[in-house]
Amino acid sequence: MSLLDYFRKSKPKSAAIAKERLQILVAHERTLRNRRPSYLPQLQKELLDVIRKYVNVDQDAISVNFEQDENQETLELNIVLPDYQQENKSVNM
Amino acid sequence: MSLLDYFRKSKPKSAAIAKERLQILVAHERTLRNRRPSYLPQLQKELLDVIRKYVNVDQDAISVNFEQDENQETLELNIVLPDYQQENKSVNM
Repeated sequence: MSLLDYFRKSKPKSAAIAKERLQILVAHERTLRNRRPSYLPQLQKELLDVIRKYVNVDQDAISVNFEQDENQETLELNIVLPDYQQENKSVNM
Repeated sequence: MSLLDYFRKSKPKSAAIAKERLQILVAHERTLRNRRPSYLPQLQKELLDVIRKYVNVDQDAISVNFEQDENQETLELNIVLPDYQQENKSVNM
């Protein structure tokens, strides 16, 4: 199963979703000889800075999961985006 | 199954992997009333610029997959990282 298949399977059954969501996943497969510390925690901040250029992201709306084992690190960011209508209103104020 | 479970399942069986890899996935669940064009193709370039601050990324080593349907867009970047030993050598030249 490819990663895109995973997203196809896990997406909501109904097209009428209530909240927009953005999910960012970074997975780093490392060789054992790479002893350098992980850069994913630092990367996380920069990724969010890039995302904020495109959408309003509330700090409260972000959940982060970082996992690390012998040969793989994964960083997962789940962001609930502000309601499109609300966003428009605040822009027009 | 969570997304991190997916990565746990799909990671190499042996810890002695030959090449380091970085996989970045961005999934945007959209509401139907959001008619704005996708920003994921633009985001892709900026994500790669951020990644390049941390690791050498060859243009040839990047494969990109962008998919879009009624209520979800996914951007998948797969990057084969340069060999750690080789990378060290070029830094020391």
